[in-house]
Amino acid sequence: MRTSIATVSLSGSLTEKLTAAARAGFDGVEIFENDLLASPLTPEEIRARCADLGLGIDLYQPMRDVEALPAGEFARGLRRARHKFEVMSRLGADTVLVCSSVSPLAVDDDALAAAQLSELADLARDHGIRVAYEALAWGRHVSTYDHAWRIVETAGHPALGTCLDSFHILSRSSGPKDLAGIEDIPGEKIFFLQLADAPLLGMDVLQWSRHHRCFPGQGGFDVAGLVRHVLRTGYEGPLSLEVFNDVFRQAEAGPTAVDARRSLLLLQEEAGIRTLPAPAVPTGIAFAELVTHDAEPVAALLAGLGFARTARHRGKPVELWERGEARVLVNTDPAAHPHTRLRSRGGNHLDGTVLTAVGLESPDPAAAARRAEALLAPVLPRRRAPGEAPLDAVAAPDGTELFLCATNRPGLPDWRADFEDVTQPAPAAPGSSAPAADSGGFRIDHVALTQPWHHFDEAVLFHRGVLGLDPQESVDVADPYGLLRSRAVTNADGSVRLPLTVGAAPGDDTAHARHIALATDDVVAAARRLTDAGGRLLPVPANYYDDLAARFEFAEGELETYRELGILYDRDACGAFRHCFTHTVGRVFLELVQRDGGYQGYGAANAPVRLAAQRALR
Amino acid sequence: MRTSIATVSLSGSLTEKLTAAARAGFDGVEIFENDLLASPLTPEEIRARCADLGLGIDLYQPMRDVEALPAGEFARGLRRARHKFEVMSRLGADTVLVCSSVSPLAVDDDALAAAQLSELADLARDHGIRVAYEALAWGRHVSTYDHAWRIVETAGHPALGTCLDSFHILSRSSGPKDLAGIEDIPGEKIFFLQLADAPLLGMDVLQWSRHHRCFPGQGGFDVAGLVRHVLRTGYEGPLSLEVFNDVFRQAEAGPTAVDARRSLLLLQEEAGIRTLPAPAVPTGIAFAELVTHDAEPVAALLAGLGFARTARHRGKPVELWERGEARVLVNTDPAAHPHTRLRSRGGNHLDGTVLTAVGLESPDPAAAARRAEALLAPVLPRRRAPGEAPLDAVAAPDGTELFLCATNRPGLPDWRADFEDVTQPAPAAPGSSAPAADSGGFRIDHVALTQPWHHFDEAVLFHRGVLGLDPQESVDVADPYGLLRSRAVTNADGSVRLPLTVGAAPGDDTAHARHIALATDDVVAAARRLTDAGGRLLPVPANYYDDLAARFEFAEGELETYRELGILYDRDACGAFRHCFTHTVGRVFLELVQRDGGYQGYGAANAPVRLAAQRALR
Repeated sequence: MRTSIATVSLSGSLTEKLTAAARAGFDGVEIFENDLLASPLTPEEIRARCADLGLGIDLYQPMRDVEALPAGEFARGLRRARHKFEVMSRLGADTVLVCSSVSPLAVDDDALAAAQLSELADLARDHGIRVAYEALAWGRHVSTYDHAWRIVETAGHPALGTCLDSFHILSRSSGPKDLAGIEDIPGEKIFFLQLADAPLLGMDVLQWSRHHRCFPGQGGFDVAGLVRHVLRTGYEGPLSLEVFNDVFRQAEAGPTAVDARRSLLLLQEEAGIRTLPAPAVPTGIAFAELVTHDAEPVAALLAGLGFARTARHRGKPVELWERGEARVLVNTDPAAHPHTRLRSRGGNHLDGTVLTAVGLESPDPAAAARRAEALLAPVLPRRRAPGEAPLDAVAAPDGTELFLCATNRPGLPDWRADFEDVTQPAPAAPGSSAPAADSGGFRIDHVALTQPWHHFDEAVLFHRGVLGLDPQESVDVADPYGLLRSRAVTNADGSVRLPLTVGAAPGDDTAHARHIALATDDVVAAARRLTDAGGRLLPVPANYYDDLAARFEFAEGELETYRELGILYDRDACGAFRHCFTHTVGRVFLELVQRDGGYQGYGAANAPVRLAAQRALR
Repeated sequence: MRTSIATVSLSGSLTEKLTAAARAGFDGVEIFENDLLASPLTPEEIRARCADLGLGIDLYQPMRDVEALPAGEFARGLRRARHKFEVMSRLGADTVLVCSSVSPLAVDDDALAAAQLSELADLARDHGIRVAYEALAWGRHVSTYDHAWRIVETAGHPALGTCLDSFHILSRSSGPKDLAGIEDIPGEKIFFLQLADAPLLGMDVLQWSRHHRCFPGQGGFDVAGLVRHVLRTGYEGPLSLEVFNDVFRQAEAGPTAVDARRSLLLLQEEAGIRTLPAPAVPTGIAFAELVTHDAEPVAALLAGLGFARTARHRGKPVELWERGEARVLVNTDPAAHPHTRLRSRGGNHLDGTVLTAVGLESPDPAAAARRAEALLAPVLPRRRAPGEAPLDAVAAPDGTELFLCATNRPGLPDWRADFEDVTQPAPAAPGSSAPAADSGGFRIDHVALTQPWHHFDEAVLFHRGVLGLDPQESVDVADPYGLLRSRAVTNADGSVRLPLTVGAAPGDDTAHARHIALATDDVVAAARRLTDAGGRLLPVPANYYDDLAARFEFAEGELETYRELGILYDRDACGAFRHCFTHTVGRVFLELVQRDGGYQGYGAANAPVRLAAQRALR
């Protein structure tokens, strides 16, 4: 099926919007009238630009307050329509959207509405144009899709059909049985299908529609379910995104258009009309990679945590540090530093140590990469230098490199093969102790990836759709200078957990460091080891522990230990969570966590205290 | 009455919040528990800090899910409460807020609620503490103030009273008769009064409360009406602001605290419990002042518009340009340039020509300044140099200097007296024509003041409360890169109009230029004069005029004239509006407007086209 996007869904000038839509691979666009009016290009020039870009103009929109009006008003509406049809002829657009009247002059008279729409359709037909009549959720008398369809049916005019819009339908829907009626409409009378999702906000529907629509899969609507109903009618027109969203209005058009088309590809897969390579859900975290100009502070921190430098890359200045199953790559190659690679706005303080890549264990790296590529993720060069293993890797929307790994699996390229063991121990950092003899149960519990402000929902959809991870509940966390929003994506057994976090405003994407959380079976021992080695943990205010004492009962001495080391505590219905934080090195810090009894969260209740303590140190 | 503010209403660390509250003149604070937990200060140190700052700790909050619970849960609640009361004793706080239970375990049993709150109050009394019980609007069984009061009355415990919160009451209120019941509560049983306003959003009340509260006078609630009811009970406790607001969480605490206290002062005046100097509503715009490093481009523009350089300041490099009643000061004093004076964030491109001051005709400049000072507006030095007229002036929240003028009024200081007439005509700018012989009906129609992102509601309240101007409807305007919000403040006859506009995100405060709109009785003649003199007007796309033809009927040739000159057109129920825009000089542009038949707006329908055209030139 054709895919389209309304120009109002993207930022910038009309030219910028068209270019972004074409580059993302859309087949067509809906031209939003205000974008035409504000453009210095003539309709003929816009038509030519679209043709050059390979874009059809699938819809011109909107026409408002045309039907069910007193005669004088209707005559004025026809006059406006004649002008618009002339513009559309110059554009080469053959379908116009007419929204149900909101005018206080409109009357509740379906016969009049049908008669006037017929008259409009006569005029349209003379210009070779079709009229797609849509019920706005806040229409004065016509606000449901079935009501709009009854009027179209009554009119019985070949140039008059209906337009279905998932927002207007699903924002009012009381359940699936509302939607079954869609299948009673003949597909050839559905002239257009506009798609948008939205978070379930329970707010005034007009404001909800104008500010909070989002791309399918990023909200709470079952858009795919609606599409399935529409397809059963025989509808063969485009799937078109019409999204009004305050964030997209500000974001760059190019990435937004890619996000938009990825959403439609996933929707088509979900609706059963497109086959994509199946997801190969990651089964573990192979490693996290830090890039730095100065390895010493990171090395000291890792050594203090009992990591040993076990190997180095054969061709690049990259060292592998390990403890148990936890692996961290420390990369000092200046060319790897993401000064310009990571997408970032505002401050852009991406100097110092940064977290740039995550290795994900994949049951089928090549298949995972094929799916990512089909879903418009940039696929990174497989073999970067002669002799290196041909590793599959893709870039996430934020620029993070995701390596699809097959560690120690015969017959598959192994990232570990690019490393040679270091026989002598790494030179001990000042005050650090020898590498831990036992593993301490160490593994990477989660990697927290701070996202650019404009791209949070895109990131969640990417990790769900491309990697097959499950988004968890979204939580708001109070930082002293604004609210953060955080949502983890995980695999089913929790062996891959990637909390995605976004700041309170543009520019905040660089205000919060990323971090690697290391799971251990004894967080007290791990924390004490670090402090004994001269390392420092984030200091936690005494007031926090006084409050913990009021909230939970602890064994003798337990709370004193937490207080001494700066260990935070949380509990849910399943179990307990103990965690503490290292100081921040550059733009990265480490967390030590101990999960007991099946605790599933990330200590969100403690985040305000942690964030305030980190702010206090800056 | 005492004034207080909840620490959650301000950004930053607890220390920063306390300092900001004290500097703004609050008498006390509500300590929000999370602020205490995140603070490295002990309760004793916080108590001492407050004492040093002259702040009382009027409330400790919140305690949740205490009442109407099964015995085991209640026992755990009492254990938590005992710890909290000990913390409160260390803080020296004597009142605790208890919110009605939201726990799914809570039962609908007022007798049980009363009995358990009595038991809690026993424990509180032993610590010298009072319990203020508040109905959350989303409480599980208790969600109205009268229900909470009935439970408190049933308990009949001297250490148990109620807390009234304007948000929880007014967000659920169906009208004034709901509120009359407040007066049935004995004042001494109202232990606390929390105040917040909110825009009328019609959304889920919990989200509305957590993200969109604002200071009284900045939303849609009749907070003063509620306060009047409370005062009739004999309540003598503090008026305390408790505002959860995503913007305030990010804004600097200092200015937010001043904004907060100004709101309370105005609320007290409105409730009849504080007398402030009466407003002296401005009666006209005396001048607008531009500061620039290079006067030539501005001078050329003014000359092209028929302005003449008529006078210069006796002591400073400031020139007066006039046409009719429109006066523009051009100031080339480097010391006047607001590189650092105007509050600005992000890009901070305040170089080039900027609009820094507005002269407002005042019926009583000294009284107006006294009111401004009483409302915490910085009063600027009256006489800046020997021999200058002693002019009253205050700074608006955005740093704009507002001069309170008495032009040509005997016995009052006159700004014009600081200027000496220029006898010879100003040297004509290249291509400019001689000053216009007739006035063309020129006067300043409006001065559009772009506001910093975090301070929009503050600016509206300032202009309303301090100057006595009336806020008009708020409108959203689509710029190609985000939505702008605009709201004009005006006097009754429209001779003073100040549209306040804010961008879509922090940093956008510098993205949009300010402008001076000049009213004329013949915008076509004024526009043609400028272009004939070689000046340029903002080019408007042809598509805009094609659409105008569809929307309105014009006299023969009229539309062609608008098209030729770039004049935009709008119409409302009263009349017509024609306007056009000059190119931007530095960070300022001029607009020519013609209002006919009582048109009241600012051409908001044309703003997206204008903004896109301005973006295209950048």
